[in-house]
Amino acid sequence: MPCGNDDDLKDGLDYETCMFNPRLEYFNAPLMRNSETIEQPADLSTTTKKFTQEAIHFIKQNKDKPFFLYMAHTAPHVPLFSSCEFRNKSLRGIYGDVVEELDWSVGEILVTLKQNGRDNNTFVVFTSDNGPWTTFKDQGGSAGLLSGGKGGTYEGGMREPAIFRWPGKLKPGVIMDIATSMDLLPTICKLANMKLPKDRIYDGYDISPVLFGTGKDPRDIVLYYRDVQVFAIRKGAYKAHFMTQPEYNDETVTIHDPPLLLNLNVDPSEKNNIAIKNPEIISEMKAILKQHLATVIKVENQLEK
Amino acid sequence: MPCGNDDDLKDGLDYETCMFNPRLEYFNAPLMRNSETIEQPADLSTTTKKFTQEAIHFIKQNKDKPFFLYMAHTAPHVPLFSSCEFRNKSLRGIYGDVVEELDWSVGEILVTLKQNGRDNNTFVVFTSDNGPWTTFKDQGGSAGLLSGGKGGTYEGGMREPAIFRWPGKLKPGVIMDIATSMDLLPTICKLANMKLPKDRIYDGYDISPVLFGTGKDPRDIVLYYRDVQVFAIRKGAYKAHFMTQPEYNDETVTIHDPPLLLNLNVDPSEKNNIAIKNPEIISEMKAILKQHLATVIKVENQLEK
Repeated sequence: MPCGNDDDLKDGLDYETCMFNPRLEYFNAPLMRNSETIEQPADLSTTTKKFTQEAIHFIKQNKDKPFFLYMAHTAPHVPLFSSCEFRNKSLRGIYGDVVEELDWSVGEILVTLKQNGRDNNTFVVFTSDNGPWTTFKDQGGSAGLLSGGKGGTYEGGMREPAIFRWPGKLKPGVIMDIATSMDLLPTICKLANMKLPKDRIYDGYDISPVLFGTGKDPRDIVLYYRDVQVFAIRKGAYKAHFMTQPEYNDETVTIHDPPLLLNLNVDPSEKNNIAIKNPEIISEMKAILKQHLATVIKVENQLEK
Repeated sequence: MPCGNDDDLKDGLDYETCMFNPRLEYFNAPLMRNSETIEQPADLSTTTKKFTQEAIHFIKQNKDKPFFLYMAHTAPHVPLFSSCEFRNKSLRGIYGDVVEELDWSVGEILVTLKQNGRDNNTFVVFTSDNGPWTTFKDQGGSAGLLSGGKGGTYEGGMREPAIFRWPGKLKPGVIMDIATSMDLLPTICKLANMKLPKDRIYDGYDISPVLFGTGKDPRDIVLYYRDVQVFAIRKGAYKAHFMTQPEYNDETVTIHDPPLLLNLNVDPSEKNNIAIKNPEIISEMKAILKQHLATVIKVENQLEK
């Protein structure tokens, strides 16, 4: 599905209406294997199931050698469809049904690893790319106690849980440290005994010491980019918002000077600005921003192509 | 502690200031055993520990007969103090420290039940009376994804988790049904084989069929009272707000006609009013309110005495 499942609406149909009250016949998305279209329009109610079958097939085919599987579900992005087995299965409406089907999918993959003797030598990561799309209300998900959603730089838009699994290697537990999806590349290369090419600067860190409990989290700072601008910085427990902007449908950027300052450990919902009492942390955050910006080499914006 | 831990501020001190930055010497609360004052001013940093010791003593004394223990902690109400063993123990600041000490206290009580052979014949309930006091920001707690807080009739003010424990009798699990603390009296009387006096009408139901998995939840409706008025009604998944009012420091009551209507299963954060599309549910909610009000016999308001 090259464009995501909401980008192939048939001509003349209104986007928001079709996402809130989706019907299969509104969509013309192609389902592809490599560069070959195998179904068009794809039956969007069966995508999760078909992706899962394909992943299981791939694991079985590669069970005797090292493999890398990137399983990028299009669900639970709008338009929401579950397969008939999961319809009305959850209390949480169609969003809940779709999430239950994703949960089933993960279970099927883990069972396949086990049945093919790969349970103990496969590193599994489960995470997401962004928070709820609040425009779509209860079809857009929830960030729990976090503020904001997808598109914005409050925690609800950018903080995601991640589950790491490797039976016999990773001790079960909950880790409250900071990592980003940019850390996956250096971490997985480390675990696979592969050297990273040295022709570029990486924004990611090898977080394997955190996962294996052998060392400190190498990441203490997160830069919250929106498009090409740094809107916020987190360092340890503290987060400074230099700019904020509503998630969608509003281009108004509010510049905060001093930045809004929050302690995410005691105030994960980002409600209580403590900038006035902490001028030294504000100075530190400003210095981090300045230092970072000095390292950035501007390149052509590929999104605007 | 007859008045709660925030009601005995020494003369001339400002309430809010003392709650946000509490010091032991601001308070003059007495610690009492029955009608006898045993410590005044009580050292508020040791209250949780002393309550726990008293509870353990009570269990040991009564281990050979049926007993009822009502363990009403004053923590985590402001002013927040933990004992020195729990200071800075949590990432979540003083509120987290206080909650960790409460967790310790519950553990001590459960261990005492076990050590005294009462683990398998004691019914334990853990719950709370209201949601976070949002006025006190990160010292007031959090309602997670629920809206509002203590004092209001949104879910964040009135919905509480409850844990029921009875090893060998209750099957471990999560139940999503509705109950209120008014249901504890009929439920516990049923479990203790005691008959409820018949000279009054009860607002509670015996929810033991839900706990034991032997039958349906007898409660389908919750009335959300604020003082002497019904502000909202829940029936099954739906909740109608007939009136709303800010939790604190604002007497403005907004009357909603039609009431705001929410589906709590798909929208637990109460963000999406679906009244317009559901006139039949609105009619049903209005009928429930009318029917309820017809049964209410006004009595003297004991709070205003």
